[in-house]
Amino acid sequence: MGNRTMKALIFSAPGKIELVEKPIPRPGPTDALIRITTTTICGTDVHILKGEYPVKPGLTIGHEPVGVIEELGTAVTGYTVGQRVVVGAITPCGQCGSCLEGIQAQCGGKPMGGWRFGNTIDGAQAEFLLVPNAMANLALVPDQLSDEEVLMCPDIMSTGFSGAESGKIKIGDTVAVFAQGPIGLCATAGARLSGASLIITVDNLENRLRMSREVGADITINFKEKDPVQAIMDITRGRGVDVAIEALGTEGTFQSCMRVLKPGGTLSSLGVYSGDIHIPVSAFYAGLGDQTLITTLCPGGKERMRRLMEIIGHGRVALKSMVTHRYKLSQILEAYDLFGNQRDGVLKVAITPD
Amino acid sequence: MGNRTMKALIFSAPGKIELVEKPIPRPGPTDALIRITTTTICGTDVHILKGEYPVKPGLTIGHEPVGVIEELGTAVTGYTVGQRVVVGAITPCGQCGSCLEGIQAQCGGKPMGGWRFGNTIDGAQAEFLLVPNAMANLALVPDQLSDEEVLMCPDIMSTGFSGAESGKIKIGDTVAVFAQGPIGLCATAGARLSGASLIITVDNLENRLRMSREVGADITINFKEKDPVQAIMDITRGRGVDVAIEALGTEGTFQSCMRVLKPGGTLSSLGVYSGDIHIPVSAFYAGLGDQTLITTLCPGGKERMRRLMEIIGHGRVALKSMVTHRYKLSQILEAYDLFGNQRDGVLKVAITPD
Amino acid sequence: MGNRTMKALIFSAPGKIELVEKPIPRPGPTDALIRITTTTICGTDVHILKGEYPVKPGLTIGHEPVGVIEELGTAVTGYTVGQRVVVGAITPCGQCGSCLEGIQAQCGGKPMGGWRFGNTIDGAQAEFLLVPNAMANLALVPDQLSDEEVLMCPDIMSTGFSGAESGKIKIGDTVAVFAQGPIGLCATAGARLSGASLIITVDNLENRLRMSREVGADITINFKEKDPVQAIMDITRGRGVDVAIEALGTEGTFQSCMRVLKPGGTLSSLGVYSGDIHIPVSAFYAGLGDQTLITTLCPGGKERMRRLMEIIGHGRVALKSMVTHRYKLSQILEAYDLFGNQRDGVLKVAITPD
Amino acid sequence: MGNRTMKALIFSAPGKIELVEKPIPRPGPTDALIRITTTTICGTDVHILKGEYPVKPGLTIGHEPVGVIEELGTAVTGYTVGQRVVVGAITPCGQCGSCLEGIQAQCGGKPMGGWRFGNTIDGAQAEFLLVPNAMANLALVPDQLSDEEVLMCPDIMSTGFSGAESGKIKIGDTVAVFAQGPIGLCATAGARLSGASLIITVDNLENRLRMSREVGADITINFKEKDPVQAIMDITRGRGVDVAIEALGTEGTFQSCMRVLKPGGTLSSLGVYSGDIHIPVSAFYAGLGDQTLITTLCPGGKERMRRLMEIIGHGRVALKSMVTHRYKLSQILEAYDLFGNQRDGVLKVAITPD
Repeated sequence: MGNRTMKALIFSAPGKIELVEKPIPRPGPTDALIRITTTTICGTDVHILKGEYPVKPGLTIGHEPVGVIEELGTAVTGYTVGQRVVVGAITPCGQCGSCLEGIQAQCGGKPMGGWRFGNTIDGAQAEFLLVPNAMANLALVPDQLSDEEVLMCPDIMSTGFSGAESGKIKIGDTVAVFAQGPIGLCATAGARLSGASLIITVDNLENRLRMSREVGADITINFKEKDPVQAIMDITRGRGVDVAIEALGTEGTFQSCMRVLKPGGTLSSLGVYSGDIHIPVSAFYAGLGDQTLITTLCPGGKERMRRLMEIIGHGRVALKSMVTHRYKLSQILEAYDLFGNQRDGVLKVAITPD
Repeated sequence: MGNRTMKALIFSAPGKIELVEKPIPRPGPTDALIRITTTTICGTDVHILKGEYPVKPGLTIGHEPVGVIEELGTAVTGYTVGQRVVVGAITPCGQCGSCLEGIQAQCGGKPMGGWRFGNTIDGAQAEFLLVPNAMANLALVPDQLSDEEVLMCPDIMSTGFSGAESGKIKIGDTVAVFAQGPIGLCATAGARLSGASLIITVDNLENRLRMSREVGADITINFKEKDPVQAIMDITRGRGVDVAIEALGTEGTFQSCMRVLKPGGTLSSLGVYSGDIHIPVSAFYAGLGDQTLITTLCPGGKERMRRLMEIIGHGRVALKSMVTHRYKLSQILEAYDLFGNQRDGVLKVAITPD
Repeated sequence: MGNRTMKALIFSAPGKIELVEKPIPRPGPTDALIRITTTTICGTDVHILKGEYPVKPGLTIGHEPVGVIEELGTAVTGYTVGQRVVVGAITPCGQCGSCLEGIQAQCGGKPMGGWRFGNTIDGAQAEFLLVPNAMANLALVPDQLSDEEVLMCPDIMSTGFSGAESGKIKIGDTVAVFAQGPIGLCATAGARLSGASLIITVDNLENRLRMSREVGADITINFKEKDPVQAIMDITRGRGVDVAIEALGTEGTFQSCMRVLKPGGTLSSLGVYSGDIHIPVSAFYAGLGDQTLITTLCPGGKERMRRLMEIIGHGRVALKSMVTHRYKLSQILEAYDLFGNQRDGVLKVAITPD
Repeated sequence: MGNRTMKALIFSAPGKIELVEKPIPRPGPTDALIRITTTTICGTDVHILKGEYPVKPGLTIGHEPVGVIEELGTAVTGYTVGQRVVVGAITPCGQCGSCLEGIQAQCGGKPMGGWRFGNTIDGAQAEFLLVPNAMANLALVPDQLSDEEVLMCPDIMSTGFSGAESGKIKIGDTVAVFAQGPIGLCATAGARLSGASLIITVDNLENRLRMSREVGADITINFKEKDPVQAIMDITRGRGVDVAIEALGTEGTFQSCMRVLKPGGTLSSLGVYSGDIHIPVSAFYAGLGDQTLITTLCPGGKERMRRLMEIIGHGRVALKSMVTHRYKLSQILEAYDLFGNQRDGVLKVAITPD
């Protein structure tokens, strides 16, 4: 493809992102180049834009790619150019010690080591994307699923479901989910898929609480109307919940999760925290409550993508409806403006090439 | 209650059960006496009737009680006479070594030690039932649930769901369930509750296959029409299933389960086997397939019952429809005749006092 | 035993404990009365004495009993008067919802609900002790084991080992244990028993570090000589540890545990915390490190005691040597003075009747 | 290396192996070529020689390599020529669906798919060996460990330990291991490392039983002197064992394992079976015994090798002594003769280049 260039959205400086022209990258032996057909914007991208999560200026951002294989590295087998694929936000190598012992998101033994797109290498908000360790990460999209139907797989659905999985939700559990943005909604759907018998969710936006009930919540609490901790303790008659899922990333919601947890319960945390967390000794039962606090970074890799697409393909969840707005890549700054300011009831935007 | 007597269905000899009068038992210090308001007949009871599973002549059979507390042992606290309760088929003591390490169905470290009703002590097909270890086993029934709605909890639902639980079904798994009688149907419902993305079930009765689709199967196979092993391998494109559930108790279905299992998969067995099982070395991959074969006896105890009622109460499954026929206790021999011969599309019968 | 009285050590007020005469209790139907033959003092008892952990004035303290059955409740079967028993510090009922789902230390669904002795009911630093739920809690001591050999079972060994168990230590793991008091030493022994290939321990007392090496540590760090976090990162060449065990109960050691944890690692906390805990966002990897933080209250019940005695009986650990000093019950205030002030290299004291 | 050739031991026909000259292979982009410095013969190789496990005539056999990197594929990074490495018998790709979900030995979703060396590709009993998926499989050997010290890692130790791991041995478990050949001895060592409190082993060769006690058995049973099933039930006072490990691969030992298993216990099978297995309904408790039967193929990959070397390096086991005889590659037919006929107390032979 010689010296062709492509459009790419880069982080320039805190508060500033730009759509620029960049050379189309060439795949190394184990890489693949994919042409992006649909991508989206994540809350984490907005953190990056604001400078709250630092990345190198000039980096293309975005980590949620659906596309078509354009070129394969010389050592990549089992794929052909033209196949439609989805790739996880996290791209494990599959071959390091961490990956081989199942801690794929911390690839290479480095914190968040598996999160490369839009973090340590160029990301998906562009016309083309270089996928490292292609054989571990290219997941073929079945013909019957549209780009938009699988667009939640790379991050939103994988992360949200992991809230239920890391919480080890069992049949008959009572579960609370704090915050019902896209991740929280998927955590709710994941809790439902995992056999929870009672799911209580918390947010302050009525459209999110309505959608929460659609994807699986039994009871929704608007925290502007009542104290969610007290409400959950009342609903459970003082018992507390078996599993509490944090889907926002603030000290307040983390503490609320602890306060609604039954002795012996599990707090499954999905949020990205920008500050320290204070654990009150009372909510910690002095360290004697048999509590589990577990954090999870979005599981990636092609097997994870395959499983999530199976869930979608067999109608277990209906998450296509999370795409509330659609933009062309050339309009992506507008899309950021809408999404970053949470205007117009936006949940997720779909970005397609011009 | 002095010397009052009650009606009770006893096993007399292979092929012979009788409705007789027996003294109403008196609770020892840790027992409770309950007045049965609804009970049912299990396939295992038919095995007992036929002499295929030996019990002592004179024993009252049945192990699926819903009733009302009539009298409490002197050491029983936390309950009052008149409360409506359901009791699991398995009644763990909660206090022996096995129970304390979580192997409650093998209470006392004896094979099937937790299965007492209609096996080692008088059972539930009677007007009254003595419940041992009452504090571990009496589960209060919420007012909004009818007897029939909780009638599947003691055995059918607890056993069926355990097929999914012991199989450790994960989100996105492909699952096959062999046999769709009451237990198999609940295994299907349990697989659905556990996040299976594709559920394939096998039986030869069309009404059961129809109900199978209602409770969660994606694809049903009538084994009189095609070879289920071949069909499942075709459906999964040679991959096999992550988890296969055996819900019948024959060597043939056990072997079929092994043959559809992916390398690294789990066979979760619920059936009661009356003969030896032959494992072909080919289906066993010479012992090198990373296979797990696990058997499960119905989980009991009041916490299990509480969780199953939560599942019912929050509408996660609709198993009331399993009761296809209703009889009075005085008509129970008729009910056995219908159920034992699988006439008239029977799934489960409800037995109530005269 | 009529109106006989016994000696018992009670908490009177913060800073004040007293040896008084109390009526010997009479067992209810499911209780047992045991005559204490050996008991000991725990760090938690010193917290109680200082008023840092509140209990009701007049309560007999102590939770580590070895003794002989003196009298059995009318509903207790399977035991005879005169048998020698050890009882866990935590006495689960085995029959509530929490116990039946395996969360025995949080018996009754209440925080620390299983910890009764010397917390919510009279404890073991007395001539006699009433054991609730006797059938779940009386563990027969094999003849070949002395009182002192099993004296660490009720709390020290059960808690310490649980640090390794809750950390899910696997064969080949690298483990750090912060603090090498009696609990920490048992955590070290437990890590060794669980297959850790490299165990690094931290304390500031040389006699404890020496004993640490005897029970299983490969490398010991005196934190007065060097920064343990830096030292552990150096030893592991920047990799961090798979599992860090906190065995003290301070914010500082909790934070140090987090800082030496590899991404994807587990912090297993045993300490009793008297204040809040601050989690620095850096050590928390912004919630994206796939970390597990788990707290454990001492596992109890007779099966746990049986297993620990098996470990001792087969020579897997040699913890008898933890008893460094011996006192009569009438000298117990002296014993508290020595133990509470950590004089004379004390690890554990044995208290026997006069 | 042009057209150079190397010595290699090939399977020619049932009963016939030959040392021949073969071209030295050239690594593809993700492969590595290693020069073998030490290898050994496995019982499985003898099965292959006898034609009991079929491989393609002409294939080089052997799957236990220690060597030095001779040449690296163009896409392999992180290694340099000359480094000393050990490679597992099983070489997972790390990148297929099976590997990514942690079922690495069944790489590619094919039965035993991860077992390539001496099975589906040329093996290690040669002067050079081509290692596929080099980045997932080359494990650097620490300088302080000799070739012989790590020679058990690729198969014997990895397989043996997995018997304990798959059995989920817990602190305080009673474990029986049937057969004390090299794999069984490592299973015994693995059980000891996993916290078993009582380990009972069975064999008929006194030198193996003696070594069994050295690596961790508490009680050894010579099955020529007494019935091991009866003996184990006597030793456990009728309780049975928590975990039974099968380390031979015969129906008889499999059945014996079942017969000594407590209700709720686990049979962890390591053997390679050449015929069907008959499960008696009595030992199967009619399918109601909450039993787990699990088979495990040798775990591979460089992280597994690293962990095993950590175990050796820190002195947790002393398996070097398993090498009882040493041969040059040119004498390998002699080595097979000795090993295949189990002469002269042989456990394992070390094979080094001429």
